[in-house]
Amino acid sequence: MEIKVLKDILNANSQIAEQNRKLLTGKRIMAINLMSSPGSGKTTLIMRTVEKLEDKARIAVIEGDVSSSIDAEKLSQAGVTAIQINTGGGCHLDASMVNSALANLPLDDIDILFIENVGNLICPGGFDLGEYVRVVILSTPEGDDKPHKYPLLFSQAHALVVNKTDLLPHVAFDMEAFARVFQGLNQQAALFQVSGVTGEGIEEWAKWVTANLQKLRAQNS
Amino acid sequence: MEIKVLKDILNANSQIAEQNRKLLTGKRIMAINLMSSPGSGKTTLIMRTVEKLEDKARIAVIEGDVSSSIDAEKLSQAGVTAIQINTGGGCHLDASMVNSALANLPLDDIDILFIENVGNLICPGGFDLGEYVRVVILSTPEGDDKPHKYPLLFSQAHALVVNKTDLLPHVAFDMEAFARVFQGLNQQAALFQVSGVTGEGIEEWAKWVTANLQKLRAQNS
Repeated sequence: MEIKVLKDILNANSQIAEQNRKLLTGKRIMAINLMSSPGSGKTTLIMRTVEKLEDKARIAVIEGDVSSSIDAEKLSQAGVTAIQINTGGGCHLDASMVNSALANLPLDDIDILFIENVGNLICPGGFDLGEYVRVVILSTPEGDDKPHKYPLLFSQAHALVVNKTDLLPHVAFDMEAFARVFQGLNQQAALFQVSGVTGEGIEEWAKWVTANLQKLRAQNS
Repeated sequence: MEIKVLKDILNANSQIAEQNRKLLTGKRIMAINLMSSPGSGKTTLIMRTVEKLEDKARIAVIEGDVSSSIDAEKLSQAGVTAIQINTGGGCHLDASMVNSALANLPLDDIDILFIENVGNLICPGGFDLGEYVRVVILSTPEGDDKPHKYPLLFSQAHALVVNKTDLLPHVAFDMEAFARVFQGLNQQAALFQVSGVTGEGIEEWAKWVTANLQKLRAQNS
C-alpha cells in the first residue's frame, strides 16, 4: 500500500509538471530547476546571473524553503521578482507548489525563471517541476566525492556548477578527480566552475543559460 | 490515506527505536545520531574524536549513505570498526536499518557508537534511531542563516558543532549572529566550534562526548 500511494503521488506530480511545462514553454519562459545541498550558493548564483543578464533577459525566481523567506527577501531587495514557497517541513518542491506560484507571477514579463529548490541533494531528484533544464550546484568545501554518494541528482543534471572556486586553495577538492567521476555518471551535462564571491566563471555559465533560452524560443516560435 | 500510512510508518519506527535504545543502554553503549548537510564533515569529526579518545573509549561507527561505502572504507582503513548502510535512494536512516546494523556489530566491545546519518538537513529529523544524543554539524561555508531555514534539526539537537572554523577568514559566517539565532531556537544544546583540519576545538567536543558516556553509565549501573 505504501508503494501504491507513492506511485499515485508521483503520477499526479508528473501530470501537473506537464501542465507547468506547457504553460511555461507556451509563454516562452525558460525554467531552471536549481538544486543543491544547503548553503552551496543557489541564491548567490541567481543574483550573479541576474547582474550578468540584466540587459538581455527578464529574470524571476521561485524560492523554495522549508521555512523562512530570507532568500526571497534578499532577491526582492535586489529588485528581482521573487515569490516564496514554504514547504512547512517538506524536503523538496513539487509540481503543484510550482503551479500555485506560477499563478502569482507576471508570466508575460518573464524570460528566465529560476526555481530554487529546497536545499537537499536527495529528495528533489524524484520530482519533475515542469522545468526546461535541471541544474545542480556543488560547492568545493562539500568535497569531490559527492557524485558517488548522491548519484541520482548528479546523473539527471543538464548542467553542473562547481561553486566557491575561490575556496580551492583552502579546501581538499580535486577538480580533475571530480570531473572524472561526474562525467562517468553523466556524459551529457555541461560543467562550470564559478565563484559567486569573485564572479569567476559566471560569464560562461550565463552564456549557457541564454543559449538554452534561445533554444527554447527556437522550439516554440 | 497518505497521512495514515505516514503515521503507521512513524509509529513502527518509534517502536523499533525504543528496542534499539534498550539494547544499547543495556550494553552501556552511548549512541550519537550525527546529522548534517552533505560535506559538512561528519566522517572527519568522527575520525578526530576517535584519535582523541582512543585510550579512553572503544568507538564504532554505523555509516549511512544513499550509495557507496567511501566513508566506511575510510574509517576501516583507520582501524575503526565501521558498518555501512546503503539506503538505496532513501533520504535518512530509520530505526529498522540501525537495528539490522546492531546485529552485525560486536556490542560487548563498544563504548561509543556514532551513527552517521545520510547527508540531509531535513528528513533525518523525523526518525528516532534509538540514539542517546542527537548532534548536528554545520560547516561555516554553508552560512550562518541555516537555523532559520531548517529549524527542525537545529531545535532537536543536544549539541551543535560548527565545523570548518579554519575557513572563517575566507567565508561570510557571523559566529555571533549564528549563536544568537541558534540559541533562540534551542536553549539546551551545547555549542562547539571545531576544525576537523586543524583539530581546533576537538578536545572540548570530545569532553562532552565522554561526559555523556559517563552520564549513561551512571544511569545504567
